[in-house]
Amino acid sequence: MSQPENTSNRAEEEGGTTLSKKAAKKEAIKQEKLKRQQEAAAAAAALAAASIEADPLSENYGEVALPDLQSKAVSGRKWTEVGLVNESLKDKTVLVRGRIQTTRPVGKNIGFLVLREKGFTLQCVLTVADNLVSRQTVKFATSLSKESHVDIEGIVSVPDAPIKGATQQVELQVRKIYGISRALPTLPINIDDAARSEVDIEKALQGGEQLVRVNQDTRLNFRVLDLRTPANQGIFRIQCQVENEVPTVWQNDHRVVYTVVPYMEELRGADLIFRQFLLSEGFVGIHTPKLIAGSSEGGASVFRLDYKGRPACLAQSPQLHKQMAICGDLGRVFEIGPVFRAEDSFTHRHLCEFTGLDAEMEIKEHYSEVMDVVDRLFVAMFDSLNENCKKELEAIGKQYPFEPLKYLRKTLRLTFEEGVQMLKEAGVEVDPLGDLNTEVERKLGKLVLEKYDTEFYILHRYPLAVRPFYTMPAYDNPAYSNSFDVFIRGEEIISGAQRVHVPELLSTRAEGLGIDLKSIETYIDAFRYGAPPHGGFGVGLERVVMLFCALNNIRKTSLFPRDPQRITP
Amino acid sequence: MSQPENTSNRAEEEGGTTLSKKAAKKEAIKQEKLKRQQEAAAAAAALAAASIEADPLSENYGEVALPDLQSKAVSGRKWTEVGLVNESLKDKTVLVRGRIQTTRPVGKNIGFLVLREKGFTLQCVLTVADNLVSRQTVKFATSLSKESHVDIEGIVSVPDAPIKGATQQVELQVRKIYGISRALPTLPINIDDAARSEVDIEKALQGGEQLVRVNQDTRLNFRVLDLRTPANQGIFRIQCQVENEVPTVWQNDHRVVYTVVPYMEELRGADLIFRQFLLSEGFVGIHTPKLIAGSSEGGASVFRLDYKGRPACLAQSPQLHKQMAICGDLGRVFEIGPVFRAEDSFTHRHLCEFTGLDAEMEIKEHYSEVMDVVDRLFVAMFDSLNENCKKELEAIGKQYPFEPLKYLRKTLRLTFEEGVQMLKEAGVEVDPLGDLNTEVERKLGKLVLEKYDTEFYILHRYPLAVRPFYTMPAYDNPAYSNSFDVFIRGEEIISGAQRVHVPELLSTRAEGLGIDLKSIETYIDAFRYGAPPHGGFGVGLERVVMLFCALNNIRKTSLFPRDPQRITP
Repeated sequence: MSQPENTSNRAEEEGGTTLSKKAAKKEAIKQEKLKRQQEAAAAAAALAAASIEADPLSENYGEVALPDLQSKAVSGRKWTEVGLVNESLKDKTVLVRGRIQTTRPVGKNIGFLVLREKGFTLQCVLTVADNLVSRQTVKFATSLSKESHVDIEGIVSVPDAPIKGATQQVELQVRKIYGISRALPTLPINIDDAARSEVDIEKALQGGEQLVRVNQDTRLNFRVLDLRTPANQGIFRIQCQVENEVPTVWQNDHRVVYTVVPYMEELRGADLIFRQFLLSEGFVGIHTPKLIAGSSEGGASVFRLDYKGRPACLAQSPQLHKQMAICGDLGRVFEIGPVFRAEDSFTHRHLCEFTGLDAEMEIKEHYSEVMDVVDRLFVAMFDSLNENCKKELEAIGKQYPFEPLKYLRKTLRLTFEEGVQMLKEAGVEVDPLGDLNTEVERKLGKLVLEKYDTEFYILHRYPLAVRPFYTMPAYDNPAYSNSFDVFIRGEEIISGAQRVHVPELLSTRAEGLGIDLKSIETYIDAFRYGAPPHGGFGVGLERVVMLFCALNNIRKTSLFPRDPQRITP
Repeated sequence: MSQPENTSNRAEEEGGTTLSKKAAKKEAIKQEKLKRQQEAAAAAAALAAASIEADPLSENYGEVALPDLQSKAVSGRKWTEVGLVNESLKDKTVLVRGRIQTTRPVGKNIGFLVLREKGFTLQCVLTVADNLVSRQTVKFATSLSKESHVDIEGIVSVPDAPIKGATQQVELQVRKIYGISRALPTLPINIDDAARSEVDIEKALQGGEQLVRVNQDTRLNFRVLDLRTPANQGIFRIQCQVENEVPTVWQNDHRVVYTVVPYMEELRGADLIFRQFLLSEGFVGIHTPKLIAGSSEGGASVFRLDYKGRPACLAQSPQLHKQMAICGDLGRVFEIGPVFRAEDSFTHRHLCEFTGLDAEMEIKEHYSEVMDVVDRLFVAMFDSLNENCKKELEAIGKQYPFEPLKYLRKTLRLTFEEGVQMLKEAGVEVDPLGDLNTEVERKLGKLVLEKYDTEFYILHRYPLAVRPFYTMPAYDNPAYSNSFDVFIRGEEIISGAQRVHVPELLSTRAEGLGIDLKSIETYIDAFRYGAPPHGGFGVGLERVVMLFCALNNIRKTSLFPRDPQRITP
């Protein structure tokens, strides 16, 4: 599995190998598995043999197996996180748990291992010494398979020269080492391979060396291994950060998590992210049903299922129900949850299931009130990511180099007409009442960047014809609508609008677009009991992270992505 | 629709009317709708006639219609929230938007209205006066239908006597009033009826008066109206509070939302709720797929669907994927998202879709580490709800009276064996290696309350036979498991356990329970690449709110509930 793969850039970008390749791969995996099981058995036998040799220090190493890992006892021992093992602990004995990143025996008397926990790595040294470390201990330690978990007790020492192969600038002189869980001796992908950047692969190739390139599909097949790379650890911590304000403080480059009081002190004056920002502006977090009778957005891309004998489908957005929550007087609401689209688009930016960040709010006069929220929210979010996620952004950039996002303190707003005009002046003719395709959006993004020096902007007052039935038409021209899209690096991440709150107009609009009124009856009725003017927006979480970090594929920012060809793992 | 309904308590408790009743009701609704449309037309005509009378003050009142509600302009006017209109604004002119709760004309020259916004109500007075308020204005204002939205400009005055019918102890002397959105003149349910407590209905009945009782099913049919009652406004703000720490400060009994700096100052030292608590303890928020190939919990209660030609189902929990995230080295993870159960149980405590709060974490030695998190989390949550949601709890208690939850500073832990023994001593014999049914759980809850004075406790070390295949058996007795349930007021709200992290044991357990290994292949494989000992738990958000407030039906704490008979609105 970890052979170099000559994946074309296109396959990489579009996230897949062809299906024909898959069958062959599956067979290869089967064979590999069998081989690995045999290897594992052999390794275990060798180990057992080694353990039998008489060793007065045999208590200091070995495999911990069931039942000792079944909550047998609470020892009261104190664990130290790998990232916190530093000079301040010099000459102290510490106990750490982590994964074996590499092992290296030097003769029979010395062994090195690199231990990894949460992206931090620590060099551990075993040196045979009377009454401290036996040869068997060194043998045991250096025969452990990569990615296995071990508990190590040792003494912190500070070497004279800087340590190159680990994040921590101290060494651990191992006294005791116990195997907690053992990884297969041959893994389907190596973490080193998965963590390699395109740049490094190209550089090696110029030197005549062909390094392994793990393609996107293989990564996703073995996602739990792929997730362990520094870039992926960064991506999913950033995803969490986009949604939540993560209460952390830094201590010697290590993200330390405190409980409430110091956290609050540290974060005073810090910016808020999606959830906390909206809460602080009076939005109420809600949960709307994903199982619905009618489809929420219309069209063909809907998953249908049987609901206790009745036809049902999976919500394509919380649109209808978040508006109904507004009719239920919750004032301002938001929801973060899964959104289902049975799309056939197999592109770098579409998924069949993604995480929607949705907000809806009463407005007093103008849909600009909604754009104001979007503006403040995203500027606060970008500020906070740049400020609080430096380590994560660095880890991502190391594997997938990117330039920081350019954005203004006050977000640029252009009307659709202005956008069309800019394109026209640049020689790109588009239908002034049609939609912009992905290519044209990218082009406009470039023009905006040149003229306004920003990669984040709002395009509003879209043609009505290209917006959903619940979009409020413009007051002065029914060909336009009170709607907007928001772009990062030339790609759309947000759609928003003022909604139609007048039931008669809503029915007319829905009927005009061929929607079965029966299927959205309870939705339209909700506006007959008094409905305030309102508007809102929806954001794709995966797209925000992808585009903020200029990643080339949305599968990189979805933990276990679902696309037309993938429903596992 | 708003006729008194003699709903039996059982129907109320089980949330439904029979299906046969439904068809008749549907027809009635149709008729009602027709009637209402006619009434609305008549009212509009009368209003138009009234408006025609010459009135020099005609600019000061009237309906605002499209296009003036289509984001025509930003006026720069300042709105004041109803809840903030108080003595401090005496003699000031304010502009408010809210719903008409009631109107009452007194002759032709005086009119009263009560305006409602976010649960706060304000008495507004119209008195005919030269150059200020015309008779037509009074007529217009008092003819507005209940639940319509209006904008009112007026002057704040402080009356001598206390105001009984409104939360705000000032009056607004109306100068201008504009209709923003009009509710049907006859609503399917009246908010007053929906807000009435059982106690008040019973009291009136003893005095010979039969007040309207709105049953659960009718409420859910017209959920957007039902949501406007003070109790429901409280319930869904509490639901949000359980999940998120809501950044608010109180000002004169009004929940005021500030932006970041004052919020942070105010909240220093406050307790954290689910999301923030876990973030502060180093958990990473994740999103796992709801569309999966195999079922997550096994059994029959799974929704199946076609996924691009392949069989798929909706996740019954994020169990498998949150464990895989642990194998992907995220260390500690949590997820809040929908959970799907195609249950046939039509009880007060089951839904086909609910919001799961799930957490999973590496453990060092013992599943008590997971129970420790549950303990701290829930005590912090209860403290915070009692401290920060006084108004909401009061509003709920007014309609559905309840006693505050009794809980200990350090949560009681009993083993399953101890629980069985307590039951035995109380004369209740149960299978010592079987599960407890709902009735027995309630009984045990009562015994625990009597003996330990707590309604919140943990029961752990359940028989292995009643737990899912991924549960770790006890180290000393394979008949038991490293698992626990948590109870509020005698009902289960949380299940948790140490998980099996050894792939061979996991396969054996799954096979033993008749699970098709093929369908969970990628899950089991995830443990072959090195997996740390880990455990976690899952909570039902709706159950937590229901039981904290001692509500009798889970449909009361789900915004738009889904049960075997309901998929709308």
